[in-house]
Amino acid sequence: MVAETPIGGSAVFVMTKARGRNSAATHPEAMAKIVDIGRKPDVKRRAVATGTMLLRPATARAIRDGPVEKGDVLVSAEVAALHAMKSVWQVLPHCHPIPITAAEVSFDVRADRIVVTTNVEATYKTGVEMEALYGVTVALLTVWDMVKSLEKDSKGQYPSARIDDVRVVEKAKSQR
Amino acid sequence: MVAETPIGGSAVFVMTKARGRNSAATHPEAMAKIVDIGRKPDVKRRAVATGTMLLRPATARAIRDGPVEKGDVLVSAEVAALHAMKSVWQVLPHCHPIPITAAEVSFDVRADRIVVTTNVEATYKTGVEMEALYGVTVALLTVWDMVKSLEKDSKGQYPSARIDDVRVVEKAKSQR
Amino acid sequence: MVAETPIGGSAVFVMTKARGRNSAATHPEAMAKIVDIGRKPDVKRRAVATGTMLLRPATARAIRDGPVEKGDVLVSAEVAALHAMKSVWQVLPHCHPIPITAAEVSFDVRADRIVVTTNVEATYKTGVEMEALYGVTVALLTVWDMVKSLEKDSKGQYPSARIDDVRVVEKAKSQR
Amino acid sequence: MVAETPIGGSAVFVMTKARGRNSAATHPEAMAKIVDIGRKPDVKRRAVATGTMLLRPATARAIRDGPVEKGDVLVSAEVAALHAMKSVWQVLPHCHPIPITAAEVSFDVRADRIVVTTNVEATYKTGVEMEALYGVTVALLTVWDMVKSLEKDSKGQYPSARIDDVRVVEKAKSQR
Amino acid sequence: MVAETPIGGSAVFVMTKARGRNSAATHPEAMAKIVDIGRKPDVKRRAVATGTMLLRPATARAIRDGPVEKGDVLVSAEVAALHAMKSVWQVLPHCHPIPITAAEVSFDVRADRIVVTTNVEATYKTGVEMEALYGVTVALLTVWDMVKSLEKDSKGQYPSARIDDVRVVEKAKSQR
Amino acid sequence: MVAETPIGGSAVFVMTKARGRNSAATHPEAMAKIVDIGRKPDVKRRAVATGTMLLRPATARAIRDGPVEKGDVLVSAEVAALHAMKSVWQVLPHCHPIPITAAEVSFDVRADRIVVTTNVEATYKTGVEMEALYGVTVALLTVWDMVKSLEKDSKGQYPSARIDDVRVVEKAKSQR
Repeated sequence: MVAETPIGGSAVFVMTKARGRNSAATHPEAMAKIVDIGRKPDVKRRAVATGTMLLRPATARAIRDGPVEKGDVLVSAEVAALHAMKSVWQVLPHCHPIPITAAEVSFDVRADRIVVTTNVEATYKTGVEMEALYGVTVALLTVWDMVKSLEKDSKGQYPSARIDDVRVVEKAKSQR
Repeated sequence: MVAETPIGGSAVFVMTKARGRNSAATHPEAMAKIVDIGRKPDVKRRAVATGTMLLRPATARAIRDGPVEKGDVLVSAEVAALHAMKSVWQVLPHCHPIPITAAEVSFDVRADRIVVTTNVEATYKTGVEMEALYGVTVALLTVWDMVKSLEKDSKGQYPSARIDDVRVVEKAKSQR
Repeated sequence: MVAETPIGGSAVFVMTKARGRNSAATHPEAMAKIVDIGRKPDVKRRAVATGTMLLRPATARAIRDGPVEKGDVLVSAEVAALHAMKSVWQVLPHCHPIPITAAEVSFDVRADRIVVTTNVEATYKTGVEMEALYGVTVALLTVWDMVKSLEKDSKGQYPSARIDDVRVVEKAKSQR
Repeated sequence: MVAETPIGGSAVFVMTKARGRNSAATHPEAMAKIVDIGRKPDVKRRAVATGTMLLRPATARAIRDGPVEKGDVLVSAEVAALHAMKSVWQVLPHCHPIPITAAEVSFDVRADRIVVTTNVEATYKTGVEMEALYGVTVALLTVWDMVKSLEKDSKGQYPSARIDDVRVVEKAKSQR
Repeated sequence: MVAETPIGGSAVFVMTKARGRNSAATHPEAMAKIVDIGRKPDVKRRAVATGTMLLRPATARAIRDGPVEKGDVLVSAEVAALHAMKSVWQVLPHCHPIPITAAEVSFDVRADRIVVTTNVEATYKTGVEMEALYGVTVALLTVWDMVKSLEKDSKGQYPSARIDDVRVVEKAKSQR
Repeated sequence: MVAETPIGGSAVFVMTKARGRNSAATHPEAMAKIVDIGRKPDVKRRAVATGTMLLRPATARAIRDGPVEKGDVLVSAEVAALHAMKSVWQVLPHCHPIPITAAEVSFDVRADRIVVTTNVEATYKTGVEMEALYGVTVALLTVWDMVKSLEKDSKGQYPSARIDDVRVVEKAKSQR
């Protein structure tokens, strides 16, 4: 067994020997992993993502004209997205916890759709595009939830509502 | 002040009188609400949602052919979606907590895309389409996160990856 | 050991006999509990709570006049409070999970303070005053967080900001 | 597409026909599910679980004699277990959300071990043994975390600490 | 589009050009943000907060004299506050995730009130006063929840219970 | 009161004087703490933990032979464990939030048991053995939950299922 006292400056860990019956390392049946980023440097990173929700024109107008029954749609969706972007690692199993240093959400309401853009930054060992993408989907789903009664037809179905074109606009990192 | 002892069979609450300086009811500056579903009956409800992620053909093949570096893509995405569908009310601010009684996730991997379908059921006072939709987006984002290294180009951008066509396929409820 | 097959209509469980060395029931060193509400009827319940945050007059004006740097203060605080009121049982260890059926948050901005009122409803076996109170505190702390730069003095301290008078305005329940 | 208007008293949903290119139902590559409990009756259910942590005798004495550096071990572990038992469905992906109506945690401190017992109750469609078992493991891990400095040897390893014999003592349900 | 390869030592990101119909940057309808702390240095920071809950004298005595029905009030409230102070960024939407390095909670029980003090520390880019304040409110709400039956009058109302004077006692930071 | 302006290079905080009636520092009734790690260096750390679940031979075969009704047991358990290992500080009250940089889960299925091994790494001020141990218990409980119907006897009890031998295999740290 490797002692906890320093094991050399090379920061290399050697797997301990299997010891007896309970060693699980001998026949791994399957393996899932959060990939090792321990040796990657802390670098400033940014990601911008966008996505679109198609809406009935009357719904787009209602969003633009002011609060609907449940409240202010755009501000609610922005706040929900800020919440979400910090919690990606609790939703996507293979994501690393990342110390977000900045995040923004903004909307563009058009005649028959609403477009959201998120911007996320962190100085860390891995990129933040999943944070930006997740923020986009949570923002649009919050919109959807707040305009359900405006989008449903007489049979309770959603003939117009659809989320489309969720993508990473940009992923950047600075030099160290 | 209304006593906690029964206040009549009509289940109507009367707002208490404002009492003195700190009453906040007089000039509401804004109001957000989780809409009242207290008088709606418990009915069996189901929602089916779907969504698509566009991928490079090589990525689609890698998903189909077996585990990638981070693990099994489809099973991981399914498990993440099950997790997510139970937690919608903690992500979307105006959603009610709903006691999900059944949920399923399945994938269809095609040449240049992956399609996910979710099915959610509950016997409750409000529908479960937000649960189904959120499950779709979390499933596809889990796929995205697991195939990042396969989808990025030499500049670290995502020329092919995109989430499209997220929509409610069906919303149904039974008679009481 | 009691079988899982029906054990009689009286719904009384009898503690099984201790069996051997590992029985933990013999010398309880301590005991914490979520009290049993299993036999209480489902009744419509409502709670209203309020609380006040003292502010500099300039801060109160900034809140009233529109978004501050971080966004819209009142709507953000309302959304955070809706989120919070659904999650009380995950923050206060002895609270039962409660299926909230309605919740509202509103503000009254005054010259040197902001007053928040929350209203929560559920048809369940126990009251919702903790939900209403927790919503009040999260709403006011969200305000505090969004106006930090306006409230801090030149030494980084908060000479004016203070949360006061957090209380239950009303707790009511209907007849069955 | 099935309309949301009532679809008959039989509560049977018929899968809608696949419609065009995006139907995901045709070639499911995999499937995970939260099994359907929608037709099971609400019945009073109880589960009791137990587990043991082996400790150095000096550690067992320290726990018994009063707070350690981090605080009161037994009460902290009880509170952490109450928290945990309500959140099982957020940790184990296939568990249903269950409205717990009662929960208890108690400890028995012995010469070289500590034994915890949990009791959980709910009136619902599925049993609560996972809640009881998860409470046991969180209680014991909280103990472990609070006595780390007492259990580690000079090399930072744990020669004595071990969790053993985590099992369901009893699972019971009443008649309807 | 900015490549992910290094973009220069100045750590300045230039917004990419809008590309076609879906650019959301042109007409932002609203904007919420987690403010950028990416260039602030890591500095040791501390915050101390306090708050008071007014109680019936009999309740204060019951808290002091030992466990109430639900368990040990003070230790439970302390543990709930430790939990909470680590999770502020998941409750207040504009807060950054902060790596807390130390936290403490203590109580002073008086004749007709209970006073809680929290102390939080971190070496990071922004202060921890929201963590300390949130810990205060969760500690006091845990007390409230545990003494509900002692504080309610014959009509189920709370004539005495009130949370007051929640404030930051001190906010400090060391030199780099 | 200590100003937020720099208070000297020694990074020593001096407790402010109690000020008047509300000082809570005078008679601490109790104290819980997250111990201070603020001065400990960031060092690469690793922990390996293991645990065993005893099963009926038929259950072990069912796990090995492919998906059970709820899905793929091993992959589901791995994904649940990855999720869990990132969230230990939200479950165990005295744990510090730790930025995990790598995590792995693997299984060894034997004739009458399943053995899980977790490996966790971080470069931080405190060790990650609680993360590894928690991952072990969540992995095994996910297995338990997925094979409930295979393990229960005709009376709904679990005569074979038991979690045993949960322990830290190795705890290591590199030189700075």
